[in-house]
Amino acid sequence: MRILLTNDDGINAPGIQALWNELSSIANVEVVAPDSERSAASQAITVHHPIRVDRHCLNQPNICAWRVGGTPTDCVKIAIEALLTERPDFVVSGINQGANLGTDVLYSGTVSAAIEAAMHGIQAIAVSLDSWEVCDFNPAARFTKKLIQSMKNRSLPPNTLLNVNVPVAGEGNYNGVAITKLGVRKYDNTFTKRRDPRGRDYYWMGGSVVDSDNDEDSDIVAVSQGKISVTPVHFDLTNYAIMDLLKEWEISC
Amino acid sequence: MRILLTNDDGINAPGIQALWNELSSIANVEVVAPDSERSAASQAITVHHPIRVDRHCLNQPNICAWRVGGTPTDCVKIAIEALLTERPDFVVSGINQGANLGTDVLYSGTVSAAIEAAMHGIQAIAVSLDSWEVCDFNPAARFTKKLIQSMKNRSLPPNTLLNVNVPVAGEGNYNGVAITKLGVRKYDNTFTKRRDPRGRDYYWMGGSVVDSDNDEDSDIVAVSQGKISVTPVHFDLTNYAIMDLLKEWEISC
Repeated sequence: MRILLTNDDGINAPGIQALWNELSSIANVEVVAPDSERSAASQAITVHHPIRVDRHCLNQPNICAWRVGGTPTDCVKIAIEALLTERPDFVVSGINQGANLGTDVLYSGTVSAAIEAAMHGIQAIAVSLDSWEVCDFNPAARFTKKLIQSMKNRSLPPNTLLNVNVPVAGEGNYNGVAITKLGVRKYDNTFTKRRDPRGRDYYWMGGSVVDSDNDEDSDIVAVSQGKISVTPVHFDLTNYAIMDLLKEWEISC
Repeated sequence: MRILLTNDDGINAPGIQALWNELSSIANVEVVAPDSERSAASQAITVHHPIRVDRHCLNQPNICAWRVGGTPTDCVKIAIEALLTERPDFVVSGINQGANLGTDVLYSGTVSAAIEAAMHGIQAIAVSLDSWEVCDFNPAARFTKKLIQSMKNRSLPPNTLLNVNVPVAGEGNYNGVAITKLGVRKYDNTFTKRRDPRGRDYYWMGGSVVDSDNDEDSDIVAVSQGKISVTPVHFDLTNYAIMDLLKEWEISC
């Protein structure tokens, strides 16, 4: 089995190392990841300037990876189409520091890399740890390994990937695994305005999560209850349900 | 009526000027757009460095706009949450130079800006001209105006926006308006490898479109037949259809 690892926290992030440590026991693992953090890159691609690629050896345990001067989606594209000699069976993106839940997945470089893999017809998983502080990615990496083993003989339908969010509880303390839908995540006070020493304004995007009414079967509620959330994600953005309604509008040109 | 214009070709692009010229006759129009081209930015947001904003007067007809050092999605967020004194009734993103069809919408800054607006509960339209060369955006702008007028009393359902692609034919020569679904767009020979004068490799993302079998009711086929394509787009990435299947897998932690 061949597994491609990528992320949006950058090639030296501990999440990717933890995945390598676990998954290299069951697969031939290649790492193709951004040279620096590319959080919130969504599915952006680099089309207006060249993409640098070089070999980069992670210190422990001496993994020879590909370091890419591009986005997570660039990494998946260039891995499959230019760098790897053999097509991977799985793409795993992560483990992200911080959850990727609800509508936030639209901004997520981690999830977008997995979407890109699914667009190439490859089984894909995005994995995130629901903490900005805890750095023990090993329990989430071990769950990812179990998940891949359980997927090996039961393929996902085409154009579908899994978005996994893991609480920090650790083995034995999770409240189970929940198959979830994406919830709705909203923010308040998103922009802070400041003035630089030369008197010019600038803004920081920030803000805090607004608790919205999320359904019991949403990823947001599941993780808040200490469950590992597994959401099937697709990327067909057509709203089929209203095509007939629009036809009734009889829009003319 | 208040309309917010944005794009991913940058604030000085002719597409945004053409929209302003048409729409300012029916609405109070504000422009909040990136300071430079941000094509293929997807729904990326700027969270790790500050965002510069200044006033920028377009020469003709002296539109006083907001110029943002960020992505198209940044523009929509900062417009609604920090810059505009009143919430817009419509957000129009474009007119993009070049089509945004099929799976390519996942990479599109133009479409993502409209998605962001719809996430804020605002009626939104992304508009693209199916040409990399023709620069007469006026017919597409006039169609956009007609579309907004026909939408005023017939709101879209929540969490839905319209993705419009206009062929270059011009008024009187369109082959009608088609309500479409997103097709599938694939590329071949995506990466070109080169060596710089110092002997280091770099890659360009490129490639040509591979004709795939797209259904008659897809946006790709509609535009190829000279029709204006209008696709209802949503942003719920949950694949509900396979939630039950996944539950049967009985994934354990």
